[in-house]
Amino acid sequence: MLDWIDSYEKRTWQTTDEGTINYALIGLGWWTIDVALPAIESSDLGEVTVLVSSSTEKAERLADENDVARGISYDEFHDGAASDEYDAVYIGTPNAYHLAYAETAAELDKAVLCEKPMEATVERAEELVETCEAADVPLMIAYRMHTDPAAQRARELITDGFIGEPVSVYGHNSQPLLEMIPDPDQWRLDSDLSGYGTSVMDLGIYSINTARYLLRREPVTVHSNMLSNHEAFDDVPDERASSLFVFEDDVQMISTASQRAHEDTHLKITGTEGRIELRPAFHGECSLHLSRGDVSVTIEHDAFDAEREMEEEFDYFADRLLGDAEIYPDGRHGLRDMRIIEAVHESAERGEPVDL
Amino acid sequence: MLDWIDSYEKRTWQTTDEGTINYALIGLGWWTIDVALPAIESSDLGEVTVLVSSSTEKAERLADENDVARGISYDEFHDGAASDEYDAVYIGTPNAYHLAYAETAAELDKAVLCEKPMEATVERAEELVETCEAADVPLMIAYRMHTDPAAQRARELITDGFIGEPVSVYGHNSQPLLEMIPDPDQWRLDSDLSGYGTSVMDLGIYSINTARYLLRREPVTVHSNMLSNHEAFDDVPDERASSLFVFEDDVQMISTASQRAHEDTHLKITGTEGRIELRPAFHGECSLHLSRGDVSVTIEHDAFDAEREMEEEFDYFADRLLGDAEIYPDGRHGLRDMRIIEAVHESAERGEPVDL
Repeated sequence: MLDWIDSYEKRTWQTTDEGTINYALIGLGWWTIDVALPAIESSDLGEVTVLVSSSTEKAERLADENDVARGISYDEFHDGAASDEYDAVYIGTPNAYHLAYAETAAELDKAVLCEKPMEATVERAEELVETCEAADVPLMIAYRMHTDPAAQRARELITDGFIGEPVSVYGHNSQPLLEMIPDPDQWRLDSDLSGYGTSVMDLGIYSINTARYLLRREPVTVHSNMLSNHEAFDDVPDERASSLFVFEDDVQMISTASQRAHEDTHLKITGTEGRIELRPAFHGECSLHLSRGDVSVTIEHDAFDAEREMEEEFDYFADRLLGDAEIYPDGRHGLRDMRIIEAVHESAERGEPVDL
Repeated sequence: MLDWIDSYEKRTWQTTDEGTINYALIGLGWWTIDVALPAIESSDLGEVTVLVSSSTEKAERLADENDVARGISYDEFHDGAASDEYDAVYIGTPNAYHLAYAETAAELDKAVLCEKPMEATVERAEELVETCEAADVPLMIAYRMHTDPAAQRARELITDGFIGEPVSVYGHNSQPLLEMIPDPDQWRLDSDLSGYGTSVMDLGIYSINTARYLLRREPVTVHSNMLSNHEAFDDVPDERASSLFVFEDDVQMISTASQRAHEDTHLKITGTEGRIELRPAFHGECSLHLSRGDVSVTIEHDAFDAEREMEEEFDYFADRLLGDAEIYPDGRHGLRDMRIIEAVHESAERGEPVDL
């Protein structure tokens, strides 16, 4: 137990501690500026050298405020400005803009770290993957749960048989989006920018992807239901969504997500012999709850928040670029999530199960 | 808060504290002898006067051991033996035997408290209800969650708007049946005796019925998936089951149940403004977890266990018989659960949603 606790935060994936990846950050919303940027600055292997935004002025102002060398506009980025000053791009724009920036990054021979979901539709996500593959530039999708210590330890425990044979999974991710961002015209509620919808694309994806990661299994069929009653959700089908998946080896998963509900994040995996829960699960403050036989253990974790989680993610990405190991959540991995989300929407629309 | 805590266990349903109902207990398994019998003995309004079992010898021996006046066989019961000595029957036999005992009770003009699920199939449950209605004998289905303090307070809070508009419900009920009762030939795994199956009939019913009770809403459609891989589950389709319901007012519910998994009971209702959870939820040791805005409250409850929960249920039933108030979980209420469970099985078999 002593060893286990002391190595709880251990980066079991780390292969190198030498070198630096310089980043251009694209899309300067609060997440990029308040979370991603300081995460890279605190990381071992990354540095932010360029900020990319809608106008040169905005980019330069934010660069100035955040001690970053260069600020350039989207147009300048596409023209190759400052391309000697960064090795990789981090794409944190609305979903439907990811492809365009990835295309330019690929042309410029830059590695791509792209936020999830990777694009607005499966077709565009495919194009994104193929573009990066054709140009032979590394592509990673920003699933930061993969480097969260609680998720990593949970995954090891499941592999070691802690819960026996996995039986069922429960995933939930909800938040009151209109209270967090009081604007009915925000991009997450605009299907041109968000893609298939909002609750599954933005929230449900955490349950789906983390289950795939923890179980090392893929869903084979899904049935889902979606509803939008509130006027701000007129353009998207899923103010709330519920899904029933069957994964490989007959593992059943049920999942709910909503952008208009009390905040709650929760992932629970029940097996024949035990149970593993992440709760809170997803937004940086992950706690791990273990149960087996009559014994229950809770591991809470002060040091981690969204920024620290991002720091791990950026160092993982940099490690993959600087070392030899492969990227686990690569473009093909992210593309599979896109296909799953498309199937979730298709099932809800048709009112019947969809095979994956 | 002081008032609320002090009245946490209050029987808001109570209409009388005078009178006694004498019971004949039918089906003397561990639940009846170790839980139901002492619960009635501790109750205010009940007394056990007759025990009914497979043989006179067994019934008399158990009556003797438990200070009960009479022990009679099933055959003697059907012949009307000792019928002056009890006012009501409690039916705790395997599901498929409920109807026969209820028929005799109705003939003998005795009130019926029948364990859930009320019978093996919808058809037999309908017959049970109609028999009791025709004979004008009171019929209650033994949903003891309805008189559990945590469930009662949760229901009031939801009615008072604590969680805002209900959005989604999660229900889970699992146990390692073969570890609890190490016999692959037990009746819960025999579809002739259990009915449609085992995990939904025996465990999932708690999530379904408690959600109906708490939300005051009914499910309108269900999609479900069932799997049996273990040989002990050859005769039933649902070693594990997962379901996706839509309730009235677009409330989404997801639910899992398994008779071959680590024990866990959990009911969570998420609304636009708050969340209410019962965890543990179902087997007598119910804790209530409330969350609204930034505030979370947990109410734990030492005094309650399965026996105490049954005591409340028996006093509720007796109160309804001795007073004027109506039985809430009556035969029609239980019959609806049977139709829901049938639909859950039908959906799993056909692989498509079933309307209710």
